Amino acid sequence: MKRTHYVLGVDLGGTKISVGAMTADGERRYALDSKPTLAADGADAVVGRIVAMIDATIAQTMKETGAAREDFLGVGIGSPGPLDRKRGLVITTPNLGWHDFPLRDRVAKASGLRATLDNDANCATLGEWWIGAARGAQNVVGITIGTGIGGGLILNGRLYHGASDAAGEIGHTTIDSTGRRCNCGNYGCLEAYASGPAIANRAREALVLTPDSIIVEMAGGNPANITAQMVYDASAKGDELARDVVRETARFIGTGVANLLNIFNPEVVVLAGGVAQAGENLFGPVRAEVRRRAFKPNVDACRIVAGTLDGAAGVVGAVATFLAEYPAEA
Amino acid sequence: MKRTHYVLGVDLGGTKISVGAMTADGERRYALDSKPTLAADGADAVVGRIVAMIDATIAQTMKETGAAREDFLGVGIGSPGPLDRKRGLVITTPNLGWHDFPLRDRVAKASGLRATLDNDANCATLGEWWIGAARGAQNVVGITIGTGIGGGLILNGRLYHGASDAAGEIGHTTIDSTGRRCNCGNYGCLEAYASGPAIANRAREALVLTPDSIIVEMAGGNPANITAQMVYDASAKGDELARDVVRETARFIGTGVANLLNIFNPEVVVLAGGVAQAGENLFGPVRAEVRRRAFKPNVDACRIVAGTLDGAAGVVGAVATFLAEYPAEA
Repeated sequence: MKRTHYVLGVDLGGTKISVGAMTADGERRYALDSKPTLAADGADAVVGRIVAMIDATIAQTMKETGAAREDFLGVGIGSPGPLDRKRGLVITTPNLGWHDFPLRDRVAKASGLRATLDNDANCATLGEWWIGAARGAQNVVGITIGTGIGGGLILNGRLYHGASDAAGEIGHTTIDSTGRRCNCGNYGCLEAYASGPAIANRAREALVLTPDSIIVEMAGGNPANITAQMVYDASAKGDELARDVVRETARFIGTGVANLLNIFNPEVVVLAGGVAQAGENLFGPVRAEVRRRAFKPNVDACRIVAGTLDGAAGVVGAVATFLAEYPAEA
Repeated sequence: MKRTHYVLGVDLGGTKISVGAMTADGERRYALDSKPTLAADGADAVVGRIVAMIDATIAQTMKETGAAREDFLGVGIGSPGPLDRKRGLVITTPNLGWHDFPLRDRVAKASGLRATLDNDANCATLGEWWIGAARGAQNVVGITIGTGIGGGLILNGRLYHGASDAAGEIGHTTIDSTGRRCNCGNYGCLEAYASGPAIANRAREALVLTPDSIIVEMAGGNPANITAQMVYDASAKGDELARDVVRETARFIGTGVANLLNIFNPEVVVLAGGVAQAGENLFGPVRAEVRRRAFKPNVDACRIVAGTLDGAAGVVGAVATFLAEYPAEA
């Protein structure tokens, strides 16, 4: 009888590390766990934490399934970029403070497992394509909206990386050439309008003229505490200010998505991250804005949907990137 | 001895039809000729003109090379879109007034040759990739700036078409979400700022405040006659108004190209069409604007160059699309 094989996925973020295991056929998932990254402790400590989580995940999965250690084929790692995939390096990450750090080989050596490295937004998109909202499509644009706005591209049924693994920076495309300054230095990037912090910021700005909003209370009276999630929640409760901010957010996201429809003519656009929780309040107006802006054949060809894997897309996609490099024996 | 094979290329535009022949190895080109489209005569007349030009091109090439009729493998056709490549249909073209017109099969039947159909901007990009400015690259963005702004994408060494042959509409990506109305109905499209007519239009607008420009004389005293080419020519002669318009054009094009660098991380961006004649006057400021806006690794990975095939890119690329579908026997 054929043995079941398992692959581990690591989703490394500036705030937390998530690790889980999956069967190599993508059918079952095990032991998903998250822990704080605590990047300030330094790279060695972070690698130590990743490897400890890998070991715990293997132990837990063995317990649940009766698998043996040798049934684990390896580990896919998703990390913020830019990366050098071929050499397994994290070139630079502002959130972790790393430069040319050989993350792949450090994890491989310490865990005794083969490892692969890819961009976190690529992993999230690949996860949604493998077993989530974009299953079965040939051309998919994934947009992850959180602290930043990341993108992943599946083109002709394959993850697209570009010339130097730096493709998919959808958050850093200009939708208003003389608009808001972005953290990247450019003006008018989608991220400067529609990332979580940008949404919170626009709510704070709106409070100056419309101080009568339940958001103030939700933020404990301190506008500095406002988050995008509070804006979505307040909007769902009918708060006028929050509804305006969400409508405006939908226009910005819709503009960015319309551009991607005209460029890629994809079958699916997956919006993931906090934004996926906003529901039809946001998705309805996003779709309307896209219809107003993009070509009709491109609109007709494309579904715009929320990611279905929630926090697991990065881990699932990291497993998928490993399997793309080291296919499991049939 | 192996016989040399030939393929014909047709570049169909709203204004003119260009036809030429090439050896299937891309090494030699023959008998390139252009004639007016005269679309108002109707589709049958246009097909008749295309087929007459194909016959004349074959006759001329046979005369020059001593080839036989059976050495011509077929004809690739580039046409304005949207198209249905699989069925060989032109779905709709405002410039030609066609709807669901079976251009491929009509040309094939009348010429007795196998035929293929692809988008004109795709053909131009493929031509520059095959034997022009983007030779040897894996990931190429082609932008053709003329009456409109078209785009073609070579990704992972293959022409990318999207889900329904509607990808690459680079001219219709928003760079100013509340900006100028575009012919497509959207606001702030790149095409609304940087197409030939948009450039001429901005020069006319500038004349209201700065009537003292040699452009007026170049246009025979009538601003309605101003063309983008006159703006480039006046700028090269040092005309202040024209220089301002060109600088502004470079900022718009640079914004659009920066977006494409962040999205695609290509090795080459090829700018073709009238704009390629503008030279360093335009390309210098375009590159500067891209450096200001795009991520450094993406800028470092990418050359931004003018097309080298001039008016022949569409015909050369049409030949290449035919060969992609019907590879010549080795």
